[in-house]
Amino acid sequence: MKRVKISNNVIRRLPKYLRKLDELTDSGVERISSGELGRQMGLTPSQIRQDFSCFGEFGQQGYGYNVVGLREEIGKIMGMDREFTCVLVGVGNIGKSLIGHFSFNNYGFHLIGAFDIKSDLIGSSIRGIPVYDMQDLRKVLEEIHPDAAVLCIPGFYANEVAPVLVDCGIRAIWNFTNVELDISDSDTVIENIYFSDSLMALTYYLSEHNDELEALAEKQKQ
Amino acid sequence: MKRVKISNNVIRRLPKYLRKLDELTDSGVERISSGELGRQMGLTPSQIRQDFSCFGEFGQQGYGYNVVGLREEIGKIMGMDREFTCVLVGVGNIGKSLIGHFSFNNYGFHLIGAFDIKSDLIGSSIRGIPVYDMQDLRKVLEEIHPDAAVLCIPGFYANEVAPVLVDCGIRAIWNFTNVELDISDSDTVIENIYFSDSLMALTYYLSEHNDELEALAEKQKQ
Repeated sequence: MKRVKISNNVIRRLPKYLRKLDELTDSGVERISSGELGRQMGLTPSQIRQDFSCFGEFGQQGYGYNVVGLREEIGKIMGMDREFTCVLVGVGNIGKSLIGHFSFNNYGFHLIGAFDIKSDLIGSSIRGIPVYDMQDLRKVLEEIHPDAAVLCIPGFYANEVAPVLVDCGIRAIWNFTNVELDISDSDTVIENIYFSDSLMALTYYLSEHNDELEALAEKQKQ
Repeated sequence: MKRVKISNNVIRRLPKYLRKLDELTDSGVERISSGELGRQMGLTPSQIRQDFSCFGEFGQQGYGYNVVGLREEIGKIMGMDREFTCVLVGVGNIGKSLIGHFSFNNYGFHLIGAFDIKSDLIGSSIRGIPVYDMQDLRKVLEEIHPDAAVLCIPGFYANEVAPVLVDCGIRAIWNFTNVELDISDSDTVIENIYFSDSLMALTYYLSEHNDELEALAEKQKQ
Protein backbone atom coordinates (compact mmCIF):
# COMPACT_ATOMS: atom_id res chain seq x y z
CA MET A 1 0.00 0.00 0.00
CA LYS A 2 1.25 3.46 -0.84
CA ARG A 3 0.85 5.82 2.03
CA VAL A 4 1.17 9.40 3.13
CA LYS A 5 2.75 10.14 6.51
CA ILE A 6 -0.07 10.74 8.96
CA SER A 7 0.54 12.91 11.99
CA ASN A 8 0.66 11.35 15.42
CA ASN A 9 -2.41 13.31 16.53
CA VAL A 10 -4.50 11.97 13.67
CA ILE A 11 -3.34 8.42 14.43
CA ARG A 12 -4.49 8.91 18.02
CA ARG A 13 -7.90 10.11 16.84
CA LEU A 14 -8.54 7.29 14.34
CA PRO A 15 -9.42 4.69 17.02
CA LYS A 16 -12.02 7.11 18.40
CA TYR A 17 -13.56 7.41 14.93
CA LEU A 18 -13.64 3.62 14.71
CA ARG A 19 -15.41 3.29 18.03
CA LYS A 20 -17.95 5.92 17.03
CA LEU A 21 -18.53 4.33 13.61
CA ASP A 22 -19.07 0.91 15.24
CA GLU A 23 -21.60 2.50 17.56
CA LEU A 24 -23.39 4.15 14.59
CA THR A 25 -23.45 0.85 12.68
CA ASP A 26 -24.95 -0.86 15.72
CA SER A 27 -27.68 1.79 15.84
CA GLY A 28 -28.44 1.29 12.16
CA VAL A 29 -27.08 4.65 10.93
CA GLU A 30 -25.93 4.33 7.29
CA ARG A 31 -24.79 7.86 6.43
CA ILE A 32 -23.56 10.71 8.55
CA SER A 33 -22.49 14.27 7.74
CA SER A 34 -19.21 15.67 9.03
CA GLY A 35 -21.32 18.17 10.99
CA GLU A 36 -23.27 15.51 12.83
CA LEU A 37 -20.23 13.29 13.35
CA GLY A 38 -18.40 16.30 14.76
CA ARG A 39 -21.25 17.15 17.10
CA GLN A 40 -21.30 13.61 18.48
CA MET A 41 -17.52 13.52 18.91
CA GLY A 42 -16.87 17.05 20.13
CA LEU A 43 -14.88 17.98 17.02
CA THR A 44 -15.51 20.67 14.40
CA PRO A 45 -16.66 19.53 10.93
CA SER A 46 -13.55 21.10 9.40
CA GLN A 47 -11.30 19.16 11.80
CA ILE A 48 -13.02 15.95 10.70
CA ARG A 49 -12.70 16.79 7.00
CA GLN A 50 -9.05 17.65 7.57
CA ASP A 51 -8.36 14.39 9.44
CA PHE A 52 -9.88 12.32 6.65
CA SER A 53 -8.25 14.33 3.89
CA CYS A 54 -4.85 13.02 5.08
CA PHE A 55 -5.62 9.76 3.38
CA GLY A 56 -7.81 10.61 0.42
CA GLU A 57 -11.45 11.54 0.02
CA PHE A 58 -14.21 9.50 1.68
CA GLY A 59 -17.21 11.77 1.79
CA GLN A 60 -19.31 12.99 -1.07
CA GLN A 61 -20.20 16.66 -0.88
CA GLY A 62 -23.77 16.96 0.42
CA TYR A 63 -24.25 13.24 1.01
CA GLY A 64 -22.08 12.75 4.08
CA TYR A 65 -20.02 9.69 4.83
CA ASN A 66 -21.04 6.09 4.26
CA VAL A 67 -20.61 4.68 7.78
CA VAL A 68 -19.63 1.11 6.85
CA GLY A 69 -17.35 2.21 4.02
CA LEU A 70 -15.58 4.78 6.17
CA ARG A 71 -15.09 2.25 8.95
CA GLU A 72 -13.53 -0.21 6.53
CA GLU A 73 -11.25 2.41 5.02
CA ILE A 74 -9.97 3.64 8.39
CA GLY A 75 -9.48 0.03 9.50
CA LYS A 76 -7.33 -0.58 6.43
CA ILE A 77 -5.28 2.54 7.05
CA MET A 78 -4.69 1.46 10.63
CA GLY A 79 -3.52 -1.92 9.32
CA MET A 80 -6.27 -3.88 11.02
CA ASP A 81 -6.55 -6.25 8.07
CA ARG A 82 -2.87 -7.25 8.23
CA GLU A 83 -2.83 -10.18 10.66
CA PHE A 84 0.25 -9.45 12.66
CA THR A 85 1.27 -12.05 15.24
CA CYS A 86 1.93 -11.40 18.91
CA VAL A 87 2.83 -13.19 22.13
CA LEU A 88 1.92 -12.31 25.68
CA VAL A 89 4.68 -12.31 28.29
CA GLY A 90 3.51 -12.74 31.89
CA VAL A 91 0.21 -14.50 32.57
CA GLY A 92 -0.76 -12.73 35.82
CA ASN A 93 -4.14 -11.05 36.36
CA ILE A 94 -3.72 -8.48 33.58
CA GLY A 95 -2.31 -11.10 31.21
CA LYS A 96 -5.17 -13.48 31.99
CA SER A 97 -7.72 -10.74 31.46
CA LEU A 98 -6.25 -9.88 28.06
CA ILE A 99 -6.11 -13.53 26.91
CA GLY A 100 -9.60 -14.15 28.24
CA HIS A 101 -11.48 -11.06 27.17
CA PHE A 102 -9.53 -8.95 24.71
CA SER A 103 -10.24 -9.49 21.02
CA PHE A 104 -6.77 -9.19 19.54
CA ASN A 105 -8.22 -10.28 16.19
CA ASN A 106 -10.37 -7.15 16.04
CA TYR A 107 -7.23 -5.01 16.01
CA GLY A 108 -5.13 -6.80 13.43
CA PHE A 109 -3.33 -9.17 15.80
CA HIS A 110 -3.26 -12.93 16.12
CA LEU A 111 -2.16 -14.04 19.62
CA ILE A 112 -0.03 -17.14 19.13
CA GLY A 113 1.54 -17.87 22.50
CA ALA A 114 2.13 -16.81 26.09
CA PHE A 115 5.00 -17.12 28.58
CA ASP A 116 5.09 -17.50 32.33
CA ILE A 117 7.24 -18.84 35.15
CA LYS A 118 4.47 -20.64 37.07
CA SER A 119 4.74 -24.40 36.70
CA ASP A 120 0.96 -24.94 36.82
CA LEU A 121 0.56 -22.71 33.75
CA ILE A 122 3.53 -23.90 31.69
CA GLY A 123 2.42 -26.48 29.12
CA SER A 124 -1.26 -25.60 29.56
CA SER A 125 -3.31 -23.65 27.07
CA ILE A 126 -5.72 -20.78 27.77
CA ARG A 127 -8.44 -20.21 25.18
CA GLY A 128 -6.30 -22.24 22.79
CA ILE A 129 -3.16 -20.17 23.45
CA PRO A 130 -0.19 -22.34 24.52
CA VAL A 131 1.69 -21.17 27.62
CA TYR A 132 5.47 -21.65 27.31
CA ASP A 133 8.14 -21.64 30.00
CA MET A 134 9.62 -18.16 30.47
CA GLN A 135 13.03 -19.86 30.49
CA ASP A 136 12.48 -20.82 26.84
CA LEU A 137 11.54 -17.26 25.82
CA ARG A 138 14.45 -16.76 23.45
CA LYS A 139 14.23 -20.24 21.94
CA VAL A 140 10.48 -20.07 21.28
CA LEU A 141 10.58 -16.51 19.92
CA GLU A 142 13.26 -17.53 17.46
CA GLU A 143 11.03 -20.39 16.31
CA ILE A 144 7.71 -18.58 15.99
CA HIS A 145 9.09 -15.01 15.42
CA PRO A 146 6.02 -12.94 16.30
CA ASP A 147 5.75 -9.28 15.25
CA ALA A 148 4.77 -7.93 18.66
CA ALA A 149 4.83 -8.73 22.37
CA VAL A 150 2.39 -7.79 25.12
CA LEU A 151 4.48 -7.21 28.25
CA CYS A 152 2.57 -7.95 31.47
CA ILE A 153 5.35 -9.02 33.81
CA PRO A 154 6.06 -7.31 37.17
CA GLY A 155 7.72 -3.92 36.69
CA PHE A 156 11.08 -4.79 38.19
CA TYR A 157 11.70 -7.38 35.46
CA ALA A 158 10.59 -5.10 32.62
CA ASN A 159 14.00 -3.84 31.60
CA GLU A 160 15.52 -7.27 31.93
CA VAL A 161 13.07 -8.83 29.47
CA ALA A 162 12.55 -5.97 26.99
CA PRO A 163 16.06 -6.16 25.46
CA VAL A 164 15.61 -9.92 24.94
CA LEU A 165 12.40 -9.24 23.02
CA VAL A 166 14.14 -6.65 20.84
CA ASP A 167 17.06 -8.99 20.33
CA CYS A 168 14.70 -11.72 19.11
CA GLY A 169 13.23 -9.42 16.46
CA ILE A 170 10.09 -8.19 18.24
CA ARG A 171 9.14 -4.95 16.43
CA ALA A 172 6.41 -3.65 18.72
CA ILE A 173 5.84 -3.87 22.47
CA TRP A 174 2.52 -3.20 24.21
CA ASN A 175 3.78 -2.33 27.66
CA PHE A 176 1.59 -2.91 30.74
CA THR A 177 4.44 -2.93 33.28
CA ASN A 178 4.05 0.75 34.28
CA VAL A 179 7.82 1.02 33.84
CA GLU A 180 9.48 3.03 31.08
CA LEU A 181 11.35 0.65 28.78
CA ASP A 182 14.94 1.56 28.14
CA ILE A 183 15.29 0.32 24.56
CA SER A 184 15.30 3.65 22.78
CA ASP A 185 18.33 2.67 20.70
CA SER A 186 16.24 0.04 18.87
CA ASP A 187 13.61 0.41 16.13
CA THR A 188 11.01 -1.37 18.26
CA VAL A 189 7.85 0.69 18.75
CA ILE A 190 6.45 0.91 22.28
CA GLU A 191 2.92 1.68 23.39
CA ASN A 192 2.62 2.20 27.14
CA ILE A 193 -0.50 1.69 29.18
CA TYR A 194 0.27 3.83 32.21
CA PHE A 195 -2.63 3.29 34.60
CA SER A 196 -1.25 5.86 37.01
CA ASP A 197 -1.17 8.76 34.53
CA SER A 198 -4.85 8.40 33.94
CA LEU A 199 -5.69 8.11 37.65
CA MET A 200 -3.62 11.20 38.40
CA ALA A 201 -5.73 13.20 35.98
CA LEU A 202 -8.78 12.17 38.02
CA THR A 203 -7.06 13.21 41.23
CA TYR A 204 -6.34 16.58 39.69
CA TYR A 205 -9.91 17.20 38.55
CA LEU A 206 -11.36 16.13 41.90
CA SER A 207 -8.96 18.47 43.74
CA GLU A 208 -9.79 21.32 41.41
CA HIS A 209 -13.50 20.75 41.96
CA ASN A 210 -13.04 20.66 45.74
CA ASP A 211 -11.06 23.89 45.69
CA GLU A 212 -13.72 25.58 43.61
CA LEU A 213 -16.42 24.53 46.05
CA GLU A 214 -14.32 25.79 48.96
CA ALA A 215 -13.63 29.10 47.27
CA LEU A 216 -17.34 29.48 46.58
CA ALA A 217 -18.24 28.73 50.22
CA GLU A 218 -15.60 31.24 51.34
CA LYS A 219 -17.07 33.91 49.06
CA GLN A 220 -20.59 33.31 50.33
CA LYS A 221 -19.43 33.73 53.92
CA GLN A 222 -18.01 37.18 53.19
CA MET B 1 -5.65 26.06 47.96
CA LYS B 2 -5.85 28.94 45.50
CA ARG B 3 -5.22 27.78 41.99
CA VAL B 4 -4.77 28.90 38.44
CA LYS B 5 -6.56 26.97 35.70
CA ILE B 6 -4.02 24.63 34.16
CA SER B 7 -4.46 23.49 30.58
CA ASN B 8 -5.40 19.93 29.84
CA ASN B 9 -2.11 19.33 28.00
CA VAL B 10 -0.07 20.38 31.02
CA ILE B 11 -2.18 18.16 33.30
CA ARG B 12 -1.41 15.24 30.96
CA ARG B 13 2.30 15.98 31.14
CA LEU B 14 2.53 16.33 34.94
CA PRO B 15 2.37 12.55 35.60
CA LYS B 16 5.30 12.09 33.20
CA TYR B 17 7.30 14.64 35.17
CA LEU B 18 6.45 12.78 38.37
CA ARG B 19 7.64 9.47 36.94
CA LYS B 20 10.87 11.05 35.73
CA LEU B 21 11.47 12.80 39.07
CA ASP B 22 10.91 9.51 40.96
CA GLU B 23 13.44 7.87 38.66
CA LEU B 24 15.94 10.69 39.29
CA THR B 25 15.42 10.43 43.07
CA ASP B 26 16.02 6.68 42.88
CA SER B 27 19.31 7.33 41.05
CA GLY B 28 20.38 9.83 43.70
CA VAL B 29 20.10 12.97 41.53
CA GLU B 30 19.38 16.02 43.73
CA ARG B 31 19.28 18.89 41.26
CA ILE B 32 18.56 19.05 37.57
CA SER B 33 18.57 21.88 35.03
CA SER B 34 15.59 22.41 32.73
CA GLY B 35 17.99 21.66 29.84
CA GLU B 36 18.96 18.24 31.18
CA LEU B 37 15.40 17.40 32.27
CA GLY B 38 14.21 18.34 28.78
CA ARG B 39 16.88 16.21 27.11
CA GLN B 40 15.85 13.18 29.17
CA MET B 41 12.15 13.73 28.48
CA GLY B 42 12.25 14.81 24.86
CA LEU B 43 11.00 18.32 25.64
CA THR B 44 12.61 21.72 25.09
CA PRO B 45 13.87 23.60 28.16
CA SER B 46 11.50 26.45 27.37
CA GLN B 47 8.53 24.05 27.24
CA ILE B 48 9.51 22.79 30.70
CA ARG B 49 9.88 26.28 32.12
CA GLN B 50 6.54 27.22 30.61
CA ASP B 51 4.81 24.13 32.06
CA PHE B 52 6.11 24.87 35.55
CA SER B 53 5.41 28.59 35.32
CA CYS B 54 1.66 27.78 35.23
CA PHE B 55 1.81 27.20 38.94
CA GLY B 56 4.52 29.50 40.26
CA GLU B 57 8.30 29.42 40.24
CA PHE B 58 10.21 26.29 41.28
CA GLY B 59 13.65 26.68 39.79
CA GLN B 60 16.35 29.07 40.77
CA GLN B 61 18.11 30.68 37.81
CA GLY B 62 21.42 28.90 37.29
CA TYR B 63 20.84 26.31 40.00
CA GLY B 64 18.26 24.10 38.34
CA TYR B 65 15.40 22.38 40.08
CA ASN B 66 15.55 20.63 43.43
CA VAL B 67 14.31 17.15 42.46
CA VAL B 68 12.57 16.22 45.73
CA GLY B 69 11.04 19.66 46.19
CA LEU B 70 9.72 19.76 42.65
CA ARG B 71 8.25 16.29 43.00
CA GLU B 72 6.45 17.31 46.17
CA GLU B 73 5.13 20.51 44.62
CA ILE B 74 3.77 18.77 41.52
CA GLY B 75 2.24 16.07 43.71
CA LYS B 76 0.42 18.75 45.69
CA ILE B 77 -0.84 20.45 42.55
CA MET B 78 -2.14 17.13 41.27
CA GLY B 79 -3.93 16.65 44.60
CA MET B 80 -2.00 13.55 45.55
CA ASP B 81 -1.94 14.58 49.21
CA ARG B 82 -5.74 14.84 49.43
CA GLU B 83 -6.82 11.31 50.39
CA PHE B 84 -9.86 10.84 48.23
CA THR B 85 -11.80 7.62 48.72
CA CYS B 86 -12.76 5.18 45.99
CA VAL B 87 -14.49 1.85 45.46
CA LEU B 88 -13.86 -0.78 42.80
CA VAL B 89 -16.85 -2.20 40.96
CA GLY B 90 -16.29 -5.63 39.36
CA VAL B 91 -13.64 -7.94 40.83
CA GLY B 92 -12.69 -9.82 37.65
CA ASN B 93 -9.11 -10.21 36.44
CA ILE B 94 -8.52 -6.50 35.91
CA GLY B 95 -10.22 -5.64 39.20
CA LYS B 96 -8.14 -8.24 41.05
CA SER B 97 -4.96 -6.98 39.47
CA LEU B 98 -5.72 -3.41 40.55
CA ILE B 99 -6.61 -4.41 44.13
CA GLY B 100 -3.58 -6.68 44.32
CA HIS B 101 -0.88 -4.61 42.69
CA PHE B 102 -1.90 -1.03 42.16
CA SER B 103 -0.87 1.50 44.82
CA PHE B 104 -3.94 3.71 44.97
CA ASN B 105 -2.39 5.47 47.98
CA ASN B 106 0.48 6.74 45.83
CA TYR B 107 -2.00 8.69 43.71
CA GLY B 108 -4.13 10.32 46.37
CA PHE B 109 -6.75 7.58 46.68
CA HIS B 110 -7.79 5.32 49.50
CA LEU B 111 -9.59 2.19 48.23
CA ILE B 112 -12.32 1.44 50.75
CA GLY B 113 -14.45 -1.29 49.18
CA ALA B 114 -15.22 -3.47 46.19
CA PHE B 115 -18.38 -4.93 44.62
CA ASP B 116 -19.04 -8.14 42.74
CA ILE B 117 -21.82 -10.62 41.92
CA LYS B 118 -19.83 -13.80 42.63
CA SER B 119 -20.98 -15.47 45.85
CA ASP B 120 -17.51 -16.78 46.70
CA LEU B 121 -16.16 -13.21 46.70
CA ILE B 122 -19.04 -11.46 48.47
CA GLY B 123 -18.28 -11.03 52.17
CA SER B 124 -14.58 -11.82 51.71
CA SER B 125 -11.81 -9.28 51.83
CA ILE B 126 -8.88 -8.89 49.43
CA ARG B 127 -5.79 -7.16 50.84
CA GLY B 128 -8.05 -5.81 53.55
CA ILE B 129 -10.64 -4.45 51.09
CA PRO B 130 -14.17 -5.76 51.85
CA VAL B 131 -16.07 -7.16 48.86
CA TYR B 132 -19.77 -6.23 48.94
CA ASP B 133 -22.68 -7.73 47.04
CA MET B 134 -23.31 -5.88 43.77
CA GLN B 135 -27.01 -5.96 44.70
CA ASP B 136 -26.23 -3.67 47.65
CA LEU B 137 -24.34 -1.17 45.48
CA ARG B 138 -26.70 1.74 46.06
CA LYS B 139 -27.15 1.03 49.77
CA VAL B 140 -23.42 0.72 50.50
CA LEU B 141 -22.45 3.76 48.40
CA GLU B 142 -24.96 5.87 50.30
CA GLU B 143 -23.38 4.70 53.54
CA ILE B 144 -19.70 5.12 52.70
CA HIS B 145 -20.06 7.85 49.99
CA PRO B 146 -16.72 7.48 48.19
CA ASP B 147 -15.43 10.22 45.88
CA ALA B 148 -14.59 7.94 42.96
CA ALA B 149 -15.34 4.54 41.46
CA VAL B 150 -13.12 2.22 39.43
CA LEU B 151 -15.37 0.53 36.89
CA CYS B 152 -14.14 -2.95 35.88
CA ILE B 153 -17.40 -4.73 35.03
CA PRO B 154 -18.08 -6.35 31.63
CA GLY B 155 -18.76 -3.72 28.95
CA PHE B 156 -22.41 -4.58 28.35
CA TYR B 157 -23.29 -3.59 31.95
CA ALA B 158 -21.28 -0.37 31.87
CA ASN B 159 -24.12 1.98 31.00
CA GLU B 160 -26.48 0.26 33.38
CA VAL B 161 -24.19 0.79 36.37
CA ALA B 162 -22.66 4.20 35.56
CA PRO B 163 -25.89 6.20 36.15
CA VAL B 164 -26.31 4.50 39.54
CA LEU B 165 -22.81 5.62 40.51
CA VAL B 166 -23.56 9.19 39.45
CA ASP B 167 -26.86 9.07 41.25
CA CYS B 168 -25.12 8.01 44.47
CA GLY B 169 -22.80 11.02 44.34
CA ILE B 170 -19.72 9.47 42.72
CA ARG B 171 -17.76 12.42 41.29
CA ALA B 172 -15.12 10.59 39.27
CA ILE B 173 -15.11 7.31 37.35
CA TRP B 174 -12.00 5.45 36.24
CA ASN B 175 -13.44 3.44 33.39
CA PHE B 176 -11.87 0.11 32.35
CA THR B 177 -14.94 -1.25 30.54
CA ASN B 178 -13.78 -0.17 27.05
CA VAL B 179 -17.28 1.26 26.58
CA GLU B 180 -18.01 4.97 26.34
CA LEU B 181 -20.10 6.02 29.35
CA ASP B 182 -23.23 7.93 28.52
CA ILE B 183 -23.40 10.22 31.55
CA SER B 184 -22.35 13.45 29.88
CA ASP B 185 -25.24 15.36 31.49
CA SER B 186 -23.66 14.90 34.94
CA ASP B 187 -20.67 16.64 36.55
CA THR B 188 -18.91 13.34 37.09
CA VAL B 189 -15.42 13.27 35.58
CA ILE B 190 -14.49 10.20 33.53
CA GLU B 191 -11.05 8.84 32.73
CA ASN B 192 -11.12 6.03 30.19
CA ILE B 193 -8.51 3.33 29.84
CA TYR B 194 -9.12 2.21 26.26
CA PHE B 195 -6.78 -0.71 25.70
CA SER B 196 -7.78 -0.94 22.05
CA ASP B 197 -6.81 2.64 21.14
CA SER B 198 -3.29 2.00 22.24
CA LEU B 199 -3.04 -1.35 20.45
CA MET B 200 -4.36 0.21 17.25
CA ALA B 201 -1.52 2.71 17.31
CA LEU B 202 0.89 -0.24 17.36
CA THR B 203 -0.94 -1.84 14.44
CA TYR B 204 -0.58 1.40 12.52
CA TYR B 205 3.14 1.75 13.15
CA LEU B 206 3.83 -1.89 12.26
CA SER B 207 1.86 -1.50 9.01
CA GLU B 208 3.67 1.69 8.15
CA HIS B 209 7.01 0.03 8.78
CA ASN B 210 6.06 -2.95 6.60
CA ASP B 211 4.97 -0.69 3.77
CA GLU B 212 8.21 1.25 3.95
CA LEU B 213 10.22 -1.97 3.74
CA GLU B 214 8.12 -3.12 0.78
CA ALA B 215 8.50 0.20 -1.00
CA LEU B 216 12.24 0.05 -0.44
CA ALA B 217 12.44 -3.49 -1.83
CA GLU B 218 10.37 -2.38 -4.82
CA LYS B 219 12.74 0.52 -5.45
CA GLN B 220 15.82 -1.67 -5.25
CA LYS B 221 14.34 -4.05 -7.84
CA GLN B 222 13.93 -1.24 -10.34
